[in-house]
Amino acid sequence: MNYKIAVIPGDGIGPEIVKEAKKVLIEIGEKFGHSFDFTEVLLGGASIDVHGVPLTDEAITTARNNDAVLMGSIGGNTATSPWYKLPPEKRPEAGLLKLRKSLNLFANLRPAVLYNELKGACPLKDEIIGDGFDMMIMRELTGGLYFGERKTVEEDGVMTAYDSLTYNENEIRRIAKRGFDIAMKRGKKVTSVDKANVLDSSRLWRKVVDEVAKEYPEVSYEHMLVDNCAMQLVKDPKQFDVILTENMFGDILSDEASMVTGSIGMLASASLNDTKFGLYEPSHGSAPDIAGMDVANPIATILSAAMMLRYSFDLDKEADLIEAAVKEVLKAGYRTGDILSEGKTKVGTKEMGTLIVDMI
Amino acid sequence: MNYKIAVIPGDGIGPEIVKEAKKVLIEIGEKFGHSFDFTEVLLGGASIDVHGVPLTDEAITTARNNDAVLMGSIGGNTATSPWYKLPPEKRPEAGLLKLRKSLNLFANLRPAVLYNELKGACPLKDEIIGDGFDMMIMRELTGGLYFGERKTVEEDGVMTAYDSLTYNENEIRRIAKRGFDIAMKRGKKVTSVDKANVLDSSRLWRKVVDEVAKEYPEVSYEHMLVDNCAMQLVKDPKQFDVILTENMFGDILSDEASMVTGSIGMLASASLNDTKFGLYEPSHGSAPDIAGMDVANPIATILSAAMMLRYSFDLDKEADLIEAAVKEVLKAGYRTGDILSEGKTKVGTKEMGTLIVDMI
Ligand SMILES: CC(C)[C@H](C(=O)O)[C@@H](O)C(=O)O
Ligand SMILES: CC(C)[C@H](C(=O)O)[C@@H](O)C(=O)O
Repeated sequence: MNYKIAVIPGDGIGPEIVKEAKKVLIEIGEKFGHSFDFTEVLLGGASIDVHGVPLTDEAITTARNNDAVLMGSIGGNTATSPWYKLPPEKRPEAGLLKLRKSLNLFANLRPAVLYNELKGACPLKDEIIGDGFDMMIMRELTGGLYFGERKTVEEDGVMTAYDSLTYNENEIRRIAKRGFDIAMKRGKKVTSVDKANVLDSSRLWRKVVDEVAKEYPEVSYEHMLVDNCAMQLVKDPKQFDVILTENMFGDILSDEASMVTGSIGMLASASLNDTKFGLYEPSHGSAPDIAGMDVANPIATILSAAMMLRYSFDLDKEADLIEAAVKEVLKAGYRTGDILSEGKTKVGTKEMGTLIVDMI
Repeated sequence: MNYKIAVIPGDGIGPEIVKEAKKVLIEIGEKFGHSFDFTEVLLGGASIDVHGVPLTDEAITTARNNDAVLMGSIGGNTATSPWYKLPPEKRPEAGLLKLRKSLNLFANLRPAVLYNELKGACPLKDEIIGDGFDMMIMRELTGGLYFGERKTVEEDGVMTAYDSLTYNENEIRRIAKRGFDIAMKRGKKVTSVDKANVLDSSRLWRKVVDEVAKEYPEVSYEHMLVDNCAMQLVKDPKQFDVILTENMFGDILSDEASMVTGSIGMLASASLNDTKFGLYEPSHGSAPDIAGMDVANPIATILSAAMMLRYSFDLDKEADLIEAAVKEVLKAGYRTGDILSEGKTKVGTKEMGTLIVDMI
């Protein structure tokens, strides 16, 4: 079959890691008789440099007209980024937020997995790691503080800034269902995270998630306060299967969880709407300081491509094969610099991509 | 001199841990010729049981008429808590939030220290721990989402909940100054944490903190996004000296940081207004499941009493002595259950208090 993929190289290390993921997809296509049409879309710094804005309406339309989007990375928030001095609404990040909202990508899946071969890179002690852990953060991605009304006003010479956090029950229900659906295919456990002892939006969250939970009697289910969850991720990450939470809490907790695994260069993500369409990108950032140096780890992007095959195209066998190839390459001792440890063979971005292609 | 202390035992393990802190204060009083008058104030579950509300106006007045407040702990959010079924605005937590706001306790200092003797309890690997770490989280405590307007409304049969996040420049300036002042007495480094790529309130935060930073040329100073900070606390906690942040981010990050130390039963906190007045309480919760069993660790509360001597009463020598006594008792091998490791002597709440008193 033919699949149309919008490709967003992005900025920083984005272009070089996306290139490796494309290599892998092309190999999969040849092997299984699929064809992938790639259409490039500019987002972030790359779009700023050409169009003066981080995302054009045309780019949104192009993305929408494809079957899925594969993305590298974008970012302007490190001082080494060339777009650091721009006002926030013109930075690369603003383009990504706009794209998520325009495409209604409300369900953000972020796996946080400790790779057996990378136990040494995990910052936690062995007795906490145990047999390893494998959780899925289900983050709401198009509501809450990220898309609330905001303003900054001056009154009597004093500046005041406002942001608002809003959720309605439909927004909560659809993400909660996604969370429970995913849990049914995994460990059948959902931890819903909120701050219900303070926020009205969290109280509504809890109420609606309670209702949804009733439809999934097989799933064991608990509430956890966000501050406690931030502790539990460090204390005992093994306890989690699916963490279901709102946008800002999900941003913070998913980054914490990814670092807890020590495998951050390995972690993919998917952002889905209510069709089969989705945007797939690595969980890590755009690392402008190492851009273009052929040292970045392409595995998270390659695994994001595998998620795309699985979630948008229902090509499970193909996705399995990519994931297995990644594991084999790790087992064979090859590592990019970020996950290097004693006795392993250091390779660059391109070589890592080629090794995975060869293993397929 | 005579010092008037309002004592809030609270609920859960609160009463028994506060009792040990009082024992220590009495000993310090005898040794240095101070007298401490203790006036008990009800807050949280203890107040609900007597007055039907988590905090009475009379209790606020009593607290205000003392020189400082020493608190145990409160909490109703665990399912084992007897107040779990109450609506949120009637729960123990609501009383604490009201007290913080009424007493204008905007500056929340939360030390996150790895005790040398407790390295074994730290969840992080030895190469990350290195020589240990010692940071101070300076959390804004009376603004932001915690005290914004909120409402839940039904429109066309759909429930929507709103919370608002507001900061004005004066609120930001006063907490930023506190942060830099503390940094001057410590490692002279401030990491200001926000989400300026998304929130207007964070952009104002950054602007005002930039202004304040100019008044402290000796302090090295950086911005960090909250999601990145959640990662860095796990990856390399040694990099931090003072973390300066707003209320909700401070809630999440301070809990994460305390767990990262592995010494959570040891961590004190102070909540200050712009006078010498302050409220001192352990960073940990009320652990209703072990309440009244004489197993809770009283050290965080005892160290909170030491902070009170230091910050509210300027009794540095006395505070030093308490802190030294705690270290000696640890060195001598005594541990409560939460920090127990092989070869150490297990003691209960009361015995731990007595050991520290004896060491003074
Ligand atoms: C780039 C930024 C706006 C974004 C977010 O906060 O959502 C990023 O941190 C992420 O988690 O994908
Ligand atoms: C009890 C609760 C309202 C409180 C907070 O969120 O501030 C607690 O978690 C804390 O950090 O002191």
